[in-house]
Amino acid sequence: MGYFDAASSAPLHPVARQALQASLDEGWADPARLYREGRRARMLLDAAREAAADAVGCRADELVFTPSGTRAVHSGIAGALAGRRRSGRHLIVSSVEHSSVLHSAESFEADGGAVTRVPVSRTGAVAVESYEEALRPDTALACLQSANHEVGTEQPVAEVAAVCREAGVPLLVDAAQSLTWGRVEGDWSVLTGSAHKWGGPSGVGLLVVRKGVRFAAQGPVDERESGRAAGFENIPAIVAAAASLRAVRAEAAAEAVRLRELTDRIRARVPELVADVEVVGDPVRRLPGIVTFSCLYVDGETLLHELDRAGFSVSSGSSCTSSTLTPSHVLKAMGVLSEGNVRVSLPPGTPAEDVERFLPALADAVTTVREKLGAPAPAAVVREDSLVVDALGKRCPIPVIELAKVIGDVPVGGTVRVLSDDEAARLDIPAWCEMRGQRYVGEEPADQGSAYVVRRVS
Amino acid sequence: MGYFDAASSAPLHPVARQALQASLDEGWADPARLYREGRRARMLLDAAREAAADAVGCRADELVFTPSGTRAVHSGIAGALAGRRRSGRHLIVSSVEHSSVLHSAESFEADGGAVTRVPVSRTGAVAVESYEEALRPDTALACLQSANHEVGTEQPVAEVAAVCREAGVPLLVDAAQSLTWGRVEGDWSVLTGSAHKWGGPSGVGLLVVRKGVRFAAQGPVDERESGRAAGFENIPAIVAAAASLRAVRAEAAAEAVRLRELTDRIRARVPELVADVEVVGDPVRRLPGIVTFSCLYVDGETLLHELDRAGFSVSSGSSCTSSTLTPSHVLKAMGVLSEGNVRVSLPPGTPAEDVERFLPALADAVTTVREKLGAPAPAAVVREDSLVVDALGKRCPIPVIELAKVIGDVPVGGTVRVLSDDEAARLDIPAWCEMRGQRYVGEEPADQGSAYVVRRVS
Repeated sequence: MGYFDAASSAPLHPVARQALQASLDEGWADPARLYREGRRARMLLDAAREAAADAVGCRADELVFTPSGTRAVHSGIAGALAGRRRSGRHLIVSSVEHSSVLHSAESFEADGGAVTRVPVSRTGAVAVESYEEALRPDTALACLQSANHEVGTEQPVAEVAAVCREAGVPLLVDAAQSLTWGRVEGDWSVLTGSAHKWGGPSGVGLLVVRKGVRFAAQGPVDERESGRAAGFENIPAIVAAAASLRAVRAEAAAEAVRLRELTDRIRARVPELVADVEVVGDPVRRLPGIVTFSCLYVDGETLLHELDRAGFSVSSGSSCTSSTLTPSHVLKAMGVLSEGNVRVSLPPGTPAEDVERFLPALADAVTTVREKLGAPAPAAVVREDSLVVDALGKRCPIPVIELAKVIGDVPVGGTVRVLSDDEAARLDIPAWCEMRGQRYVGEEPADQGSAYVVRRVS
Repeated sequence: MGYFDAASSAPLHPVARQALQASLDEGWADPARLYREGRRARMLLDAAREAAADAVGCRADELVFTPSGTRAVHSGIAGALAGRRRSGRHLIVSSVEHSSVLHSAESFEADGGAVTRVPVSRTGAVAVESYEEALRPDTALACLQSANHEVGTEQPVAEVAAVCREAGVPLLVDAAQSLTWGRVEGDWSVLTGSAHKWGGPSGVGLLVVRKGVRFAAQGPVDERESGRAAGFENIPAIVAAAASLRAVRAEAAAEAVRLRELTDRIRARVPELVADVEVVGDPVRRLPGIVTFSCLYVDGETLLHELDRAGFSVSSGSSCTSSTLTPSHVLKAMGVLSEGNVRVSLPPGTPAEDVERFLPALADAVTTVREKLGAPAPAAVVREDSLVVDALGKRCPIPVIELAKVIGDVPVGGTVRVLSDDEAARLDIPAWCEMRGQRYVGEEPADQGSAYVVRRVS
């Protein structure tokens, strides 16, 4: 048994559970009231705010509690953009931000704002120069995650913050994935977080707005949480969130070393145990607990099911598991293989034995899925000088499997055309070429879908 | 000891506590994930939605969970207005709605919308005809609470819903105060609620949008909760909210009878024990647990402190306790006395003995406060045919106290002019006249503040 999806949601930390239960008796009343129950609730809320601010590295009056990390991001971006409306209506985000940031950017665009999406390297990191170049006189806000949620790559937040500060533009940092491990360094202006990522309860996010940052909360007026997070405060959950953040931080230094050894082991062993695997993300500048890889010729959803049957809970950024059937925007922006994608994110405390048991289970699961998918014979015909593979109507990873099956029949120097109407093929066929040392020629329009042309070079 | 402020927040119901603790182990994972922890979380969420829908009287797919009642109101109003934007940009609300509704209306006005605020009677109820008259061809939405949060008066929701339906206008019902007691009857279109009002945990509201109602969720896109409530679901709290709603409903019929007897006793006894009291709100069409009254010549905040010292936690809509020093908009709309205002809202399960102990404690507290305030001598001078009371710079309830002290010096038929720059005087001096059988002549501009003219008629 192994729950390896801490980047989605971490199991409740024992300290969070204790704090939650202890504060259910004291924290249910309205902290705005002057009677004893209200005063007790207010004291709990104030103490939680002090503790959270200390962990984040800000003043207590700069931090408000929101109902979730997503709400913190939505409110933070909307408020910062509105606060600087006079400066301009241009927003900068990285192309690998969490969907809550990217959806906020789309919402801003729909409202007439301009958005620059900064590209990333093949490891998933932005370049400081890219932010520098993206800054414009009318830039109201820049956003950058502290570390990526799908591949764990850490971003150069302090350097980007310095560049933004120089230009007089506030930087909002989505720190959801990294607050477990420490403060976000650098001169950022706005910061967001989410308690259930660090072992706190659901229902608590945090939004920090540094003093002096122009900020205009959007939506109907509400007096609670400095007017920045409407609605009755969820005090028992807030108390539990603050207590568990303090607890995970006390264990963070030692646990980071331990988890990094475990994920290093996965990074090293997976390519030895499983053929045709690409491990993605930065091997060094990364979060301790996350490792992500993609397996050729594998349907991600089926692989997740196989792993679940074997007792392992992992996540996938693969097109095959998403309800919308589009490839992960993160893997797409990195230009790496998305098919058969697996993200392993270890919760603090994961026993080394669980990881050791995971490795052979993964190898077995991939073999099982590949055998299941290996059946279909390629529908290949030689036409003029080019082989054509008709994969129309077939979903990831079938188009790539069929390509792999026929490449041996193509003379070196010859080409093969893969007909596909699956959106994932646009990403995965070039990625396969890179992994296999073949040349991706390009995409051509076809009667249905597209033709992806590959030249055999070895 | 008595906590009599259930209308602000009810203590956690034992069933809510049990359900919360039980679901902390099963409900922390992401319900969108396909592995076992995710599937378990999804099952808990689905079961809670079924239970809540059954209690509300709607289909499960019409109900989403929000982070609070306030967020349900904000999202519900914004979404319903946007969904009917083509029909027009006119909104109807009652003048005694919760601040979350009124602030949504202000936000809509700031964005160019038109708002009609329907007046209420002296008992706090709207007339069906007032909604009928307010409806226009461009009305996009009407809002009406099921019952008032400050005085407990029930609104004619079913009748107003029928009138709206006839005009093709959806009605949003803020049912925060009444869901404990039963479903909202009638053909409403949108409904909102708040779990901590019925003994559920903080952090859970509900938003119901009937099938067929045009609704366009506002804000950045988010896939959770049918796109109507962004952010990671707080499943343990949602489970606890649904379980406690079912539990309070099972006890509601018997408890309503019992609490109504207790509040009837307060309604009858308070005017016997305390001089110069006005009990406000509808004596019959009201929630079982709420009774509200105002005490002449009393500072509400001081009275609340005295009651807190005696072990009773109550609330006040009086100007004197609000941080903004403006009189309660509800009492103002009703045209009743706001000074020395006390709202008693009994949680289900309140022992009769607590109410019996409260009555003499209230009488003592009022006496204490009146004695404290009784000191200042009236600064009265006869000018022409009119006595002038200079209460400039003095706050509620001093202007009314000074008026009361000099009225005996005014010949029957003569007038007294009270100079005051306190906003509450505008409401309380006419209310005093009504209670005392004197004639309120009107307000005149003065060098500072206003002059409130009263004619002695008895």
